[in-house]
Amino acid sequence: MKVDTWFGVLETGGVGEITGSRLISKGIRELALYSLSLRDSRLNLPPEGFDLKAAAIECGFVESPAEYYSLLHEVTLEAAKLQVSGALTPDQRIIQAVEALDDINETTNSLSERLFEWYGGYFPESGLSGETLALFIVKYGSRDNIDSEDPLYSKARDSMGAKLEAADEALLKGFAESVCSLYERRRQIEAYIQSSMELIAPNLNIIAGPMLGARLISIAGSLEKLAVFPSSTIQVIGASKALFKHLRARAPSPKHGVIYSHPLINTAPWWVRGKIARAVSAKLSLAARIDFYSGKKDISLAEKLETKVLQIKALNPRPPQKKQEIGAKLKKKRRK
Amino acid sequence: MKVDTWFGVLETGGVGEITGSRLISKGIRELALYSLSLRDSRLNLPPEGFDLKAAAIECGFVESPAEYYSLLHEVTLEAAKLQVSGALTPDQRIIQAVEALDDINETTNSLSERLFEWYGGYFPESGLSGETLALFIVKYGSRDNIDSEDPLYSKARDSMGAKLEAADEALLKGFAESVCSLYERRRQIEAYIQSSMELIAPNLNIIAGPMLGARLISIAGSLEKLAVFPSSTIQVIGASKALFKHLRARAPSPKHGVIYSHPLINTAPWWVRGKIARAVSAKLSLAARIDFYSGKKDISLAEKLETKVLQIKALNPRPPQKKQEIGAKLKKKRRK
Repeated sequence: MKVDTWFGVLETGGVGEITGSRLISKGIRELALYSLSLRDSRLNLPPEGFDLKAAAIECGFVESPAEYYSLLHEVTLEAAKLQVSGALTPDQRIIQAVEALDDINETTNSLSERLFEWYGGYFPESGLSGETLALFIVKYGSRDNIDSEDPLYSKARDSMGAKLEAADEALLKGFAESVCSLYERRRQIEAYIQSSMELIAPNLNIIAGPMLGARLISIAGSLEKLAVFPSSTIQVIGASKALFKHLRARAPSPKHGVIYSHPLINTAPWWVRGKIARAVSAKLSLAARIDFYSGKKDISLAEKLETKVLQIKALNPRPPQKKQEIGAKLKKKRRK
Repeated sequence: MKVDTWFGVLETGGVGEITGSRLISKGIRELALYSLSLRDSRLNLPPEGFDLKAAAIECGFVESPAEYYSLLHEVTLEAAKLQVSGALTPDQRIIQAVEALDDINETTNSLSERLFEWYGGYFPESGLSGETLALFIVKYGSRDNIDSEDPLYSKARDSMGAKLEAADEALLKGFAESVCSLYERRRQIEAYIQSSMELIAPNLNIIAGPMLGARLISIAGSLEKLAVFPSSTIQVIGASKALFKHLRARAPSPKHGVIYSHPLINTAPWWVRGKIARAVSAKLSLAARIDFYSGKKDISLAEKLETKVLQIKALNPRPPQKKQEIGAKLKKKRRK
């Protein structure tokens, strides 16, 4: 009978005596990797009451119980470390990136607004904002330094803004540089999310686009969790407030959560948005499942979705009549 | 009789006829500056019913009413522009800097936390945070690149963090650079506030320190407004919630607002904090007034404040007895 143990494979006879053994070398790391590889197999478990320590001494793997326990301690510690370091799966890294992107967006906006207000005192006519303004300030600083070829030259000459002192100019330039650095960072993180999504969730990437796909994974918590969500859950992810209001009171159910940013949904006329959201989320759920369980790219998914959306639009060319709505409401009330 | 007008000084006879004139050159800017300089004088106003337009034509300044009005329009526009550009006084610039500093602080903290969480997956044992962590990441990126002389070397070698892929490393390094840039910006703005406070409010700077002084100006809205605040208002600036609760209900009055950050107050024992806050705010109010109305530096102010605080501490060496408090409460209730 074969017995798998953390230090090797043993052959035992009928009454438990060891008849042969294939031991692992005594390296901590090898032992840890080997014991992790055993985790999932249910074959060759030691029989009940089998004394691993005695067997290890008997087959010559260790010399004393003390050595056995100290080695076991180190191996399990190493195995735990290996497990922890393996916990950062690619989808977890995407989630980190999405969260960092949200932080960056928020801070960039608030610092941009501050820069706009601050520089507004010196050149209110510029009409610039956001990154363009930050780049303008980094380039010129005071409006006096503007090139005569710049389209803003004449505006800058006649500006009613205050004179920018050297100390303030240095301060504003530094501030604008930080803002530019944040905009740069935003682009970098977006590019990272795009290339990672292409790798770990190619189908979700096609159906949802990289940013929406990454956000869905981020809200679900992992690609695995997203894959087991029913499509009706995916449809309202991010609309939990409206959903619970619907469940608690007689509020209408939300038609879409974060998937509203999907171009098929937000460009559709309002009376088919709910139907299209349902079609999109069904395909999103399928895509997440394919990505998690097989990982193969399936281009037909996007085509099917497009056909479905065209069909929905063809069946509902006009908004529903007001009369019908009133009729429906009366019916509901009578039912109550 | 002399009459000051926006286009020059006129000499008029007894019945209003013009006997002589000293006209300004016809430049828009000179005229605008001249008319602004007239604003504050109440001397030599044109008598009631005096026709400026006719006088301007009579003395040869303009040739037609149309020319008079178009010139007047341009001059007043220019004067308005000049006034707007003069509106950014040094204390307004300090206020902008204080507000920018608050924004920077907030964003730096939130991005630092994100960086800490993000990098924590790769090197949880580092024990670094804030700017030290950002600088560490900019320097090394992955913990594999750490110098063998670095004190964190052994921790990095045994770390149970995940392996940092090249793409993630680039992302984290960029993010850390942005965070470093924000920390750098913070220092720059702080230095600016310090040097500006030294210039525009030297006394407030001595009594309150640059950051607290700048914050007081920022909350008041300007140095002028701060100078007219009574010291009791300065004492509770920034504690408006507690103050209104006190005024509305029977809540205790706040002892200090933002001035709590003053080292004399926040290092004092609790039972003299209110008294010391009163002494500090009295001197702050004095300092703001001297700064706004004379601008001369008065070193004796700080000495007087110190003497006063020592006196308060000498008079109240021990915390008040519990018994007395209860007695006081009972008294209050009886009075009700």
